[in-house]
Amino acid sequence: MKDSFENIIEGVAEVIPQEQLKKILASGKKLKIKLGADPTAPDLHLGHAVVLQKLKDFQDAGHEVIFLIGDFTALIGDPTGKSKTRPPLTADQIKKNTETYFNQVGKILDTSKLTIRYNSEWLSKLSSVDMIALCAKVTVARLIERDDFSKRLAQNQPISLHELLYPLLQGYDSVALNADVELGGTDQTFNLLMGRTLQEQYGQTPQVVITMPLLEGLDGEAKMSKSLGNAIGLTEDADQVFGKLMSISDKLMWRYYELLLRKSKSEIKLMQDNVSAGLVHPMDLKKQMAFAIVEKFWSQPEALKAKEKFEELFQKRNLQAGTNTKITAPDELWIVDLLKVLNSISSSSEARRLIESGAVSLDGEVIKDFKAVVRWHNGTVVKVGKHRIYVLEQDEN
Amino acid sequence: MKDSFENIIEGVAEVIPQEQLKKILASGKKLKIKLGADPTAPDLHLGHAVVLQKLKDFQDAGHEVIFLIGDFTALIGDPTGKSKTRPPLTADQIKKNTETYFNQVGKILDTSKLTIRYNSEWLSKLSSVDMIALCAKVTVARLIERDDFSKRLAQNQPISLHELLYPLLQGYDSVALNADVELGGTDQTFNLLMGRTLQEQYGQTPQVVITMPLLEGLDGEAKMSKSLGNAIGLTEDADQVFGKLMSISDKLMWRYYELLLRKSKSEIKLMQDNVSAGLVHPMDLKKQMAFAIVEKFWSQPEALKAKEKFEELFQKRNLQAGTNTKITAPDELWIVDLLKVLNSISSSSEARRLIESGAVSLDGEVIKDFKAVVRWHNGTVVKVGKHRIYVLEQDEN
Repeated sequence: MKDSFENIIEGVAEVIPQEQLKKILASGKKLKIKLGADPTAPDLHLGHAVVLQKLKDFQDAGHEVIFLIGDFTALIGDPTGKSKTRPPLTADQIKKNTETYFNQVGKILDTSKLTIRYNSEWLSKLSSVDMIALCAKVTVARLIERDDFSKRLAQNQPISLHELLYPLLQGYDSVALNADVELGGTDQTFNLLMGRTLQEQYGQTPQVVITMPLLEGLDGEAKMSKSLGNAIGLTEDADQVFGKLMSISDKLMWRYYELLLRKSKSEIKLMQDNVSAGLVHPMDLKKQMAFAIVEKFWSQPEALKAKEKFEELFQKRNLQAGTNTKITAPDELWIVDLLKVLNSISSSSEARRLIESGAVSLDGEVIKDFKAVVRWHNGTVVKVGKHRIYVLEQDEN
Repeated sequence: MKDSFENIIEGVAEVIPQEQLKKILASGKKLKIKLGADPTAPDLHLGHAVVLQKLKDFQDAGHEVIFLIGDFTALIGDPTGKSKTRPPLTADQIKKNTETYFNQVGKILDTSKLTIRYNSEWLSKLSSVDMIALCAKVTVARLIERDDFSKRLAQNQPISLHELLYPLLQGYDSVALNADVELGGTDQTFNLLMGRTLQEQYGQTPQVVITMPLLEGLDGEAKMSKSLGNAIGLTEDADQVFGKLMSISDKLMWRYYELLLRKSKSEIKLMQDNVSAGLVHPMDLKKQMAFAIVEKFWSQPEALKAKEKFEELFQKRNLQAGTNTKITAPDELWIVDLLKVLNSISSSSEARRLIESGAVSLDGEVIKDFKAVVRWHNGTVVKVGKHRIYVLEQDEN
């Protein structure tokens, strides 16, 4: 086993505690590495790739990576019935979502070596007495310390008591698995530490907690997230991904080099120095980054094709090289509906943002009115953002 | 049915809401009246009699009084293992305690008409999903509003999460029973209202909450409580009870007239006026009170005997008329042990309080040193407080 402590801690945000990680890696024992997966949100994006690549390091070192599907809470949904965003899933939906998950994860991990577990296996069997005993193991103060809870309490926003149970149940999963290590984003630190607390209370060696930095989305500000419309999905078309990657700021490019391409600080420093000295153009480095990311998470042929297309389109300013897109749509329609038909937006709020910022044009005319109704014909060129260009064509079928 | 709303609200501290009580009493329906009983503390005292007498009013009006034994939580005990005062009880102990309870309750209620229920019947059957659904029905803010919780949080004293579950489970008992009315002391208001909240959430008509005033103990300050050593137990000897009742302050006497003998405000006013006018001596009213209480909760013959004995002992200053008490004890022993042998204290802390306040004497010599070791012989007179006098005699058996 290639148990290099240095290799594992490369690029992490935090390890709690470092000494314990060093010790268990040196023990030669095959470790159980837990990652919690939410079956209600099966669409993975490049933000998830940061954690998945670290899991791959563990897999390469011969350890067991366990995908823990949180189906128990998904089956319950939101018992208050207040949240429209969390309807309960059926067992069938969960199974389907898990498969979707699995296919995407396969871009990074060796799925043949993955262990899949469902927490309904143990959580649905807990009795009322077990639940009370579980609740006895933590204090109220400790739970309401969590950032979002303390903020909501301070603002007199209601928190249902069952919401306090979820971090406990998640922590109990670590007990049920007897996990040695749990990974997550830095926004998961509280929940991951709860696993440590409970394992200790149940007489186990508490797991090592490893948090990974959160990848910023295309806007360079918020954490990458599908609902914020700033994400690159792992199932998106490679050409589109290449374009999106080319649209990020130079500053964000360094983060993507670091977190997705796992360049070392010194390698990045060297590139930055070359840019400062005028030896390299940032656009070239960005193209290299986009190429390398598509090559890594999609494939080399797709990366080559996407790069070629991008160059033809934007660098030769040949608009007609835009994606020929056959669509079925009325001649006259709401601009937002047209963008939806083109699959170029993920939500109406993203459409609004793009339109009102002047990023959408039709045959060269910028559409800034969110409510605009537009006309199109064969050959109409729709431009969305800097790098997405569609040449419309009526689908005759 | 003698459904007098006026009769029911006589002497209560609070009815929530009054209009609903009026309505359900007028409906002619046989109502379910719930009282929660704690099987870990089966020794009842006169403080409990206040609530029990109100239950009797309901019984007399033809309603169903349900004694809800909280055996579920008693079976669990304190799952943190931190509290020495709440060890889990065995099913046998609970059964025995319930019988003890029942015998004492029989002094006030018609036990042949009582319904006894155990909350383990439904609480032990709740699944983890049921528990989560239950927790979803209340907010954290609502729960930590409870006096003792908010104080402990403010003082950074730990509250285990399971402690928040107990008021919920107690409230769920009202759902399981579909209770129409729940009674308790004013210190139970929060928990009783939780029953209303949960019944509403589970689609039932919420119960009416009736709270009764808390009876002060012999010291006239704290609520009557066995652990404070200021209680008169329902199973105590009538002579001793009579003596204890004669030891209370004049001011407290009016409370006992009101809460235990259920005199109306105008009747009490009349007595007070007679005292002020010098027409009646307070000592005579106190003797009437003591007689009436022993007659009511013990029996008329016991009341007559106790009164006679009291008069002989204290009013004729005949110390040798003290209780002849056969004991088995070494000639020389710690004063606290002697009081224990005499069954005249319920705890060492009560002994300390009595001794240090100068309330204990041996053959006329006041013992103020808590650590004193004393000698006794046949005929030694031990006086504890104003009205308990023991003439010691070696038990020859």
